[in-house]
Amino acid sequence: MMSEIKPLILVCNDDGFFSPGIKALAKVASEFGEVVIVAPDRQQSAVGHAITMSVPLRANELTIAKKYKGFAVNGTPADCVKLAHGNLLERKPDLILSGINHGSNAGINILYSGTVSAATEGTILGYSSIAVSCTAYPEEADLTGAQEAARRVIKFVLDRGGLPKGVTLNVNAPAGEFKGIEWSRMADSRYVEEYEGRVDPFNRSYYWLTGEFELLDDGSDSDIHILNEGKATVTPIQYDLTDYSLLKDFGSNNL
Amino acid sequence: MMSEIKPLILVCNDDGFFSPGIKALAKVASEFGEVVIVAPDRQQSAVGHAITMSVPLRANELTIAKKYKGFAVNGTPADCVKLAHGNLLERKPDLILSGINHGSNAGINILYSGTVSAATEGTILGYSSIAVSCTAYPEEADLTGAQEAARRVIKFVLDRGGLPKGVTLNVNAPAGEFKGIEWSRMADSRYVEEYEGRVDPFNRSYYWLTGEFELLDDGSDSDIHILNEGKATVTPIQYDLTDYSLLKDFGSNNL
Repeated sequence: MMSEIKPLILVCNDDGFFSPGIKALAKVASEFGEVVIVAPDRQQSAVGHAITMSVPLRANELTIAKKYKGFAVNGTPADCVKLAHGNLLERKPDLILSGINHGSNAGINILYSGTVSAATEGTILGYSSIAVSCTAYPEEADLTGAQEAARRVIKFVLDRGGLPKGVTLNVNAPAGEFKGIEWSRMADSRYVEEYEGRVDPFNRSYYWLTGEFELLDDGSDSDIHILNEGKATVTPIQYDLTDYSLLKDFGSNNL
Repeated sequence: MMSEIKPLILVCNDDGFFSPGIKALAKVASEFGEVVIVAPDRQQSAVGHAITMSVPLRANELTIAKKYKGFAVNGTPADCVKLAHGNLLERKPDLILSGINHGSNAGINILYSGTVSAATEGTILGYSSIAVSCTAYPEEADLTGAQEAARRVIKFVLDRGGLPKGVTLNVNAPAGEFKGIEWSRMADSRYVEEYEGRVDPFNRSYYWLTGEFELLDDGSDSDIHILNEGKATVTPIQYDLTDYSLLKDFGSNNL
């Protein structure tokens, strides 16, 4: 009798390998297959889809939460996925998970998110990839609901044999117990009044980011609306940024 | 007789305020209005849509190329636009330009691009925004064609009284003289075989990014195809990443 080969699941994040969120996600992943963690060696929030080019990357092998094989990388979330794909893993992963992020990656946050970028990078490289975030920032936040949301989405993806080319699933969940999950779209939103000007002891100005989130979207099918009702959300996202309808409209103008 | 108020044009980039590209773009911008440069104080390539949250930002006022009023900011391209919008400019800009980047921002490069992110951030904040890149990396590259492409796109945008909400124009041009510009879409593409493993003098592994660009797109209407034919391109891009067709398809599945 041949031994069954379990799916290999790569888990990464942007909060760093020591974050409670990545352990919570690795735990769920381990219900479905063999887990390898490749994550930044420090906090990398709001790095967007940054890639490290000017310094060499190093990957230190270690065991995370006493049971998951892992690597800590001196790079961004997208670096971690690229390096795992190119050099660190012994076989190709069947699934890439990113998270659980401490803080929402719904609405416009998607654009700034290292968590989502790691998953998108996985998608670009041809893997089925899922980003998972909990809307609560505190490290001690109850991730039970986010774990259950992740569990259901992972099952959905594995049951159908993977995701279509070019699509990433972006999951968000409130803190606390699971109260359902719905398909959603990215809410139109932005940050406003974002810098608080101060003066340092040497009379020089400096600015702290103090973004206030503004929801510009009335729809009941947006990720933020559904999250505000207490449920988790899953939004299919893609990375072709072309505005096709406007291209059709503008394309007749000679420049 | 009242004096005419000229359009205010904010120019930023990711290569830093000392880059030849930003001066070349400021020169074109000055044909259309008053120019203010707000740019990173150092190279910020491949930072994606990163935002600085953990350190305060500083903006040092200076004059660039002996004629443009400017600020050098210790942050990312998106930081520069946010800070210009929130704190640095005396009035709201009529147009935001980002570039001229030294290196292509066509195809998948859009996702990693600080240049494009600065323009996208402008769009999110409600401004008409254009990113401009030249496919050649060397600082001494001939930017004449990129300047003419920028000139035509700026004229198009100002003539129609600005861009529709949510859209950014992404312009790319080959080095050298102008040979026409066409509307395009983002080419499907990616980087492969990306890290060269080495061993340091202390026998520890490290990795250099050595991405090889792979075009996955046969279409003659993609940005990369048109650039390869020697012409400049302009692609309308948007930041709602929702995959609506897949949402329709997947949305019927209960999770």
